[in-house]
Amino acid sequence: MALIVHKYGGTSMGSPERIKNVARRVAKWKSAGHQLVVVVSAMSGETNRLLDLAKSISSSPNPRELDVIASTGEQVAMGLLAMAISELGLKARSYTGAQVRILTDNAYNKARIQSIDESRIRSDLDEGMVVVVAGFQGVDERGNITTLGRGGSDTSAVALAAALKADECLIYTDVDGVYTTDPRVVPEARRLHAVTFEEMLEMASLGSKVLQIRSVEFAGKYKVPLRVLSSLTDPLMSLEEEAKSGTLITFEEDSKMEQAIISGIAFNRDEAKITVMGVPDRPGIAYTILGPIGDANIDVDMIIQNASVDGMTDFSFTVHRNEYQQALDVLNNQVKAHIKATDIRGDNRICKVSLVGVGMRTHAGIASKMFRTLSEEGINILMISTSEIKISVVIDEKYMELAVRTLHKAFDLDQPV
Amino acid sequence: MALIVHKYGGTSMGSPERIKNVARRVAKWKSAGHQLVVVVSAMSGETNRLLDLAKSISSSPNPRELDVIASTGEQVAMGLLAMAISELGLKARSYTGAQVRILTDNAYNKARIQSIDESRIRSDLDEGMVVVVAGFQGVDERGNITTLGRGGSDTSAVALAAALKADECLIYTDVDGVYTTDPRVVPEARRLHAVTFEEMLEMASLGSKVLQIRSVEFAGKYKVPLRVLSSLTDPLMSLEEEAKSGTLITFEEDSKMEQAIISGIAFNRDEAKITVMGVPDRPGIAYTILGPIGDANIDVDMIIQNASVDGMTDFSFTVHRNEYQQALDVLNNQVKAHIKATDIRGDNRICKVSLVGVGMRTHAGIASKMFRTLSEEGINILMISTSEIKISVVIDEKYMELAVRTLHKAFDLDQPV
Repeated sequence: MALIVHKYGGTSMGSPERIKNVARRVAKWKSAGHQLVVVVSAMSGETNRLLDLAKSISSSPNPRELDVIASTGEQVAMGLLAMAISELGLKARSYTGAQVRILTDNAYNKARIQSIDESRIRSDLDEGMVVVVAGFQGVDERGNITTLGRGGSDTSAVALAAALKADECLIYTDVDGVYTTDPRVVPEARRLHAVTFEEMLEMASLGSKVLQIRSVEFAGKYKVPLRVLSSLTDPLMSLEEEAKSGTLITFEEDSKMEQAIISGIAFNRDEAKITVMGVPDRPGIAYTILGPIGDANIDVDMIIQNASVDGMTDFSFTVHRNEYQQALDVLNNQVKAHIKATDIRGDNRICKVSLVGVGMRTHAGIASKMFRTLSEEGINILMISTSEIKISVVIDEKYMELAVRTLHKAFDLDQPV
Repeated sequence: MALIVHKYGGTSMGSPERIKNVARRVAKWKSAGHQLVVVVSAMSGETNRLLDLAKSISSSPNPRELDVIASTGEQVAMGLLAMAISELGLKARSYTGAQVRILTDNAYNKARIQSIDESRIRSDLDEGMVVVVAGFQGVDERGNITTLGRGGSDTSAVALAAALKADECLIYTDVDGVYTTDPRVVPEARRLHAVTFEEMLEMASLGSKVLQIRSVEFAGKYKVPLRVLSSLTDPLMSLEEEAKSGTLITFEEDSKMEQAIISGIAFNRDEAKITVMGVPDRPGIAYTILGPIGDANIDVDMIIQNASVDGMTDFSFTVHRNEYQQALDVLNNQVKAHIKATDIRGDNRICKVSLVGVGMRTHAGIASKMFRTLSEEGINILMISTSEIKISVVIDEKYMELAVRTLHKAFDLDQPV
């Protein structure tokens, strides 16, 4: 007997018929003797309906009350699922974030989980109940309803799995796992049977939207074995088959990483590049440039400072494309004259392509192979940034698909491991 | 400065525009220096939408989960109203039944309020907040969400007013008060400026659906001054004018009851009459007949036992028309042979018409005037039942409108007091 946490997203809960299918799947796991905690998102479309309702009252709705309203989507979903499970003759009980006391800070609309009181869930499990919990929501110390932000249900599920020391957390979604890259760009992309949570973290942060990044951080921190798999398969497929489907996000590098050096290729078109030219290469210059950018609440991604020539250097960084113009304005108005930069240049028709793989730690030559591959296709590299398990390059966005396809082939990602 | 509880029903909260109007009305009261607690129902249609969703999962939905789902309608409404009030520059905060701890028993779908912890509301009021509370819902001792049944928001409002010792509870609805009778039947019906809560109780239980009967009981028990008034008037009408509009439900008979002996005429077409003929007039016979009816969960309204002739009597009672056939079946199958009744007769084309007025206590001759008035119109009385402040007659339903109109005129209810 294992303690398993399931999480079903909005698409999986998108209609009464789909909710009944979720109930059948849950019942199958329960009947095999496992203890089940099920975290649900709101039915697809429901959160947007609620936010639109709020917008019809106020163009900038009161954040506390927005959470009061938005949290009802998951509350309805959890009730419907508990009902559907009861309908199959099993005992089920649903709880809001406040009821199981998923304690968060009081940052409405983007709260962070601080602790979970798992005693109530555990006593229900011991009574043979299936426990259904609303994702995406919690409660602050004063009892105010909070929400965790978009995609927060993944984080709820992982946090519950951590609190309950669950044997596995299964994230059911509308894709059947994590791929070597987006199959819409490279049809030969393969599903990965396993990735490490560090790789997943890089891939999530680089734009692979399978899992919310905070849920991956949480899983890493508390060592929660996580599996991403499809909710759209036959709910009554054999348990053995289902338990092996999808992609496992693991902490054990050694066993699997002997062969695959690169796990996947992530890419992201939402970036823009800014270069501050001819700035004095002196201590504090990075802060002088990026301080005002941070003050304007603009997130910076890659940061590169070239070697200095005659005490002068160029300083480049990337920001989200939506904040490109604002970042340029900040630099031109607040920074340029102050540091006597010769010029501020920008480019918002770029993209970022990244190789991700824990194998890089022990294999040399990955970067040079990547650069050679791109150069053979005539693709100019504008910026480079590396971490222990990732190499990212910024290139002209028109080469994005070409770069991803070529690298996918060059690193044999289309071949079974 | 007074502490005032407002309650707005589903129609009053039926659209974003109406919610903004409610906010304007609340802001007007608040700006006049009052402390405001506002109880809201779900937006009209929302509760039915949620119940339909539950029905799509199960034909007899799990009662606990039904309350989890149904309670979200009020939660959305309270958030939207608090938002709309904030939008007008006032401080507002919304609470679910669980958050202010409206403690109920655990009878899901029809829970009863046991206590309210008013400390949190009071401290918010002291901070100058408008407090918005979800009607219709509470929480049981174990923290499970409960609902009070249809119309329960009235009860929530009155219970909160009682717990807070509010100066007045204003029930805003889509009619502008309590009338001497239904204006659709008697166009000359007058709005009553005041009725006693006992009269209101009789009128509510007799089918005047302005207020949920339990809310009136609550108001009577805790002496909460209650006013029923329209939410569809101009929200910015003068406070003096608004404070006098609608109908006050009061405990002070003396001041107003000098003149009006009869306050109103209630009627009800939802009844059916059953007579058990030729039963032995011995102790326990009422229980022998009505015990099985009660066991079948059929509510009995009027009960009449005729004087006995030769130790035999006829025993009549009325039930809701929907339960007429079931009641007949119970009697024929379980009772008739057992007590050797000569016959079981029924009639489901009847109605009940009632005069209500505390003045009856001190004025003789009301009943005989009622019977004479009906007889002059050729209306045969099938059953009679009286209380201190009410006389009800059962008549053929085809005479209902005629009876109500004629009595309304005979007792001068169309004349200003």
